[in-house]
Amino acid sequence: MPDYQAPLRDLRFVMDEMFDFPSHYAALPGGDDASPDVVAAILEEGARFSREVLLPLNQSGDREGCLLEGGDVKAPKGFKQAYQQYVEGGWPSLSAEPEFGGQGLPHSLGMVLSEMICATNLAWGMYPGLSHGAADALRHHGSDAQKATYLTKLVEGVWTGTMCLTEPHCGTDLGLIKTRAVPTADGAFEITGTKIFISAGDHDLAENIVHLVLAKLPDAPQGSKGISLFVVPKYLPNEAGEPGERNGVVCGSLEHKMGIHGNATCVMNFDAAKGYLVGAPNKGLACMFTMMNVARIGVGIQGLGLTEASFQNSLGYARDRLQMRALSGPKAPEKAADPIIVHPDVRRMLLTQKAFAEGGRMLVLYTAQMVDVVEHGQDAAERERAETLLGLLTPIVKAFLTEVGFEATNEGVQVFGGHGFIQEWGMEQLVRDARITRLYEGTTGIQALDLLGRKVLMSQGETLKVFTKEIHKFCQAEADNPVLAEFIKPLAKLNAEWGELTMGVGMKAMQDREEVGAASVDYLMYSGYVTLAYLFARAAKHASAALEGDEHAFYQAKLDTARFYYQRLLPRTRAHAAMVQAGAGSLMAISADDFGLGFEI
Amino acid sequence: MPDYQAPLRDLRFVMDEMFDFPSHYAALPGGDDASPDVVAAILEEGARFSREVLLPLNQSGDREGCLLEGGDVKAPKGFKQAYQQYVEGGWPSLSAEPEFGGQGLPHSLGMVLSEMICATNLAWGMYPGLSHGAADALRHHGSDAQKATYLTKLVEGVWTGTMCLTEPHCGTDLGLIKTRAVPTADGAFEITGTKIFISAGDHDLAENIVHLVLAKLPDAPQGSKGISLFVVPKYLPNEAGEPGERNGVVCGSLEHKMGIHGNATCVMNFDAAKGYLVGAPNKGLACMFTMMNVARIGVGIQGLGLTEASFQNSLGYARDRLQMRALSGPKAPEKAADPIIVHPDVRRMLLTQKAFAEGGRMLVLYTAQMVDVVEHGQDAAERERAETLLGLLTPIVKAFLTEVGFEATNEGVQVFGGHGFIQEWGMEQLVRDARITRLYEGTTGIQALDLLGRKVLMSQGETLKVFTKEIHKFCQAEADNPVLAEFIKPLAKLNAEWGELTMGVGMKAMQDREEVGAASVDYLMYSGYVTLAYLFARAAKHASAALEGDEHAFYQAKLDTARFYYQRLLPRTRAHAAMVQAGAGSLMAISADDFGLGFEI
Repeated sequence: MPDYQAPLRDLRFVMDEMFDFPSHYAALPGGDDASPDVVAAILEEGARFSREVLLPLNQSGDREGCLLEGGDVKAPKGFKQAYQQYVEGGWPSLSAEPEFGGQGLPHSLGMVLSEMICATNLAWGMYPGLSHGAADALRHHGSDAQKATYLTKLVEGVWTGTMCLTEPHCGTDLGLIKTRAVPTADGAFEITGTKIFISAGDHDLAENIVHLVLAKLPDAPQGSKGISLFVVPKYLPNEAGEPGERNGVVCGSLEHKMGIHGNATCVMNFDAAKGYLVGAPNKGLACMFTMMNVARIGVGIQGLGLTEASFQNSLGYARDRLQMRALSGPKAPEKAADPIIVHPDVRRMLLTQKAFAEGGRMLVLYTAQMVDVVEHGQDAAERERAETLLGLLTPIVKAFLTEVGFEATNEGVQVFGGHGFIQEWGMEQLVRDARITRLYEGTTGIQALDLLGRKVLMSQGETLKVFTKEIHKFCQAEADNPVLAEFIKPLAKLNAEWGELTMGVGMKAMQDREEVGAASVDYLMYSGYVTLAYLFARAAKHASAALEGDEHAFYQAKLDTARFYYQRLLPRTRAHAAMVQAGAGSLMAISADDFGLGFEI
Repeated sequence: MPDYQAPLRDLRFVMDEMFDFPSHYAALPGGDDASPDVVAAILEEGARFSREVLLPLNQSGDREGCLLEGGDVKAPKGFKQAYQQYVEGGWPSLSAEPEFGGQGLPHSLGMVLSEMICATNLAWGMYPGLSHGAADALRHHGSDAQKATYLTKLVEGVWTGTMCLTEPHCGTDLGLIKTRAVPTADGAFEITGTKIFISAGDHDLAENIVHLVLAKLPDAPQGSKGISLFVVPKYLPNEAGEPGERNGVVCGSLEHKMGIHGNATCVMNFDAAKGYLVGAPNKGLACMFTMMNVARIGVGIQGLGLTEASFQNSLGYARDRLQMRALSGPKAPEKAADPIIVHPDVRRMLLTQKAFAEGGRMLVLYTAQMVDVVEHGQDAAERERAETLLGLLTPIVKAFLTEVGFEATNEGVQVFGGHGFIQEWGMEQLVRDARITRLYEGTTGIQALDLLGRKVLMSQGETLKVFTKEIHKFCQAEADNPVLAEFIKPLAKLNAEWGELTMGVGMKAMQDREEVGAASVDYLMYSGYVTLAYLFARAAKHASAALEGDEHAFYQAKLDTARFYYQRLLPRTRAHAAMVQAGAGSLMAISADDFGLGFEI
């Protein structure tokens, strides 16, 4: 059975040594509560909970799946009890605001815990995970009454939330939705329509479920400008605020999926369900983006968690499994064969996972600090800068970390050889679970358009410059540091090239908008590799400075991992840069009809 | 439900127009039987069989899986009937030798049909598929009596075969096997041991199963030099040659796997099972390689088949699914949104699959001609050349086509967005089924060592030169063809670089053998991309010459696909070349103990 230990030492390196979280927390309002001791205690308790409570339910949840019986969904055995422990432990309210019953700790702390949850039981983690987005939408756009009724319950965790966007005929293109909201005499609305792919749409973990639903008002403008957001509870709260009458929303069926079997992916039928408008009419999409940005970073963290899980388990296997002798001669002559970790290609697969896990963790925590500043920063200029950077990095966190997460989990399987394909070992589940992360909350293609089109080109490159300037400054500051030369030189070159590539696509896009879509995914991957290169250079700086201390081996391994990243992963930018520059021509040449001439008669 | 049409037009292009199969067949002994009419009829019938008989059983077989009941395995519903039709249609004997009841048609023809079978039902295809390797081993190494008893039945298809190599503690490293063979008074052997991952190890499709089993004789030398090959039938043939007494080999359990659920992956327990030595004592590994080379190309074809299946179905979806408007303005203004095939990134995903399918098909057929020549070629020098090239290309066919096949099936899922993750559409099954192809019959890492270590470096690069010289000649011959300049120039450059990279690794490997393993997988992928580049340049030559004819659209699409390959896939060689040159240093730096310092306490 798979094992997992939260990477507490690595977290300490990134949080304390690289990004000085203690000072960062101290500068936030109420930051005193997030003292180093408290943070350490929370992380340790999270490590224990994820390992001891969630991990044992991961494989059984995958095998068992969810059950729809008489209109009600049952999560796999043990999920409900684990959720109760989660609520009793106060986890849902950790980073919520005190005025709604939250503990007021920084959001970044919740993100760290989220990595542990995703690493041990992604399917389970999505039940509480979806509540964050729903709570955020209500916090930002809900009325005081809505906050009092729904937000406090979500924060407590006794109720959970969903995001009901997708319909059978549209996911990306929400302007096409057909779900209708008809006003009723009491100021509420009757919501009617079908939503699909609703994660945690129904289940038995919490006493009520708060659906945040996109629907169209009568006479709403066409397309995405005519979408409104509604809150639709499974049970209508009674006067005491407790679940009362059952509302007209039911799970019609459960999807049979490739992975995350333990999470209920529901078709939700709304049949004149009572709902309440959140925010202004026809401004639903903007409200929804509040949820989606939070959710997108959350999905990136899923990629990270699965990467770490895959890394740890394939490392264990590579140390134990005896097969062949090292090409340079026996390394364990006393054994029947050498452990496969002696083989360079096995090490390549392990290091690929390790580098993506450690690199992804740096990226998530770097972004997490910005989330804290955007939410609670005391300085307006800092807040604005953080918001800009967060906008730029969100699609990278989401798409890059899930793309490399899928690769990493596949490398994990590959280390196991044929055993990786067998369910018992738990490695193939990581691949199946990881596969959804490239799709939901906006596919990689959608994230790439968001990055290149909305964030970078729409700002005339200014958004990107905020980040490349930071990298440039770092490179300048370390230019004379001989220890870092192997990192700084290639990084400075890539950083400059990033700007040039952007300019190149921007110029072409002025002639032909399709050039944006043609370059976008390679541009996003390129951006991801350069971003991680920057963070690994910073890691190398801290590691090399600490080499002489007590923990030589840890810092040396960190430096070696950075070196591996630069030598064996960063060269992928060569391919992506060429493909960014290749243009739209070869993509657009063949007509839709002619695509199938090789097989269509 | 997924659909599939055999790519008959594309096959005609590759077989008739590019590689002149009519002349190739005419030059083989008995080649008159493989006249263009006969070949066309066989391909059409194969297309019908795979589409009408196999495809409808693919999803149901995946859902149902196999059943072990009372020691006997039942394949999913319909599999047995489909197999009966297959046998009645004479498919198993197609390319077998007439002296054993075969139809004597060229092997390459069987490989073409294999693509169709793998595209429509990989799990089913493995039942007859494994018989080929078993038959080949008997044909090359079996005694006349063994051939008479077993080979004819395998050729007829009334019995099927297996390859029993792997044991719980060893797969790659067969020198470690523990299965024992003890001679008995009648000249036979008692085989005792446990074999795992035995595909089609037990089932109800055929009346008997012929296991080819690796085991050790008493006092055999240690390691891989002490392995012998045995034939162990499920039922011992009686005097009439029909299945008689049950032998001591039973399926102990079925593996629960990520994919190919319809194929029975068995733990086979041999308990003093009666077996017969095949070939010389202690020479079993050499005999096994006969089976494995056939099987390895077969797995490459699996990658190809799944790629084509994924391409066709995602193409259909991309034409139908309406979502968003093209960035350059509406393309289907009469519809609610444009079909997603207008979006450049969707086209990138479709073209990636298309290029890998068409490129893979060229590679398989190019290799298939060599298989024919090796088996039946009339000229000794030609045979030797074909054998050399076949040795070089086999690991590329196996590993490259399965690596890109896995990528292609994932792109197929990605085109479907969230729907790709839902079982109903059948796309995620292609990914799960494809995942095993990177593992069995030798992982990608093992293929890469075979290519770089055994084939290329052990021959001092001579084996590679046979191929690069052919490419060089082609480039020289077309150097002044202005239409092909966009292909020939980069191809010639890559071809030269291929030699330089090889030399570079060879030099480093003289100092440190680990350099071979460090470079191997990137070297293999590099080799695969250059090989396909050569074949696409040849395709472009034929296509550009035929542009003015009746089928302009077909040839234009072929040329555009070649262009896409060169512009958008071939740049990946830049990354692989850099990583081949990166050396072993960064891979070997961290000790096995220090790998886990980020999480191990």
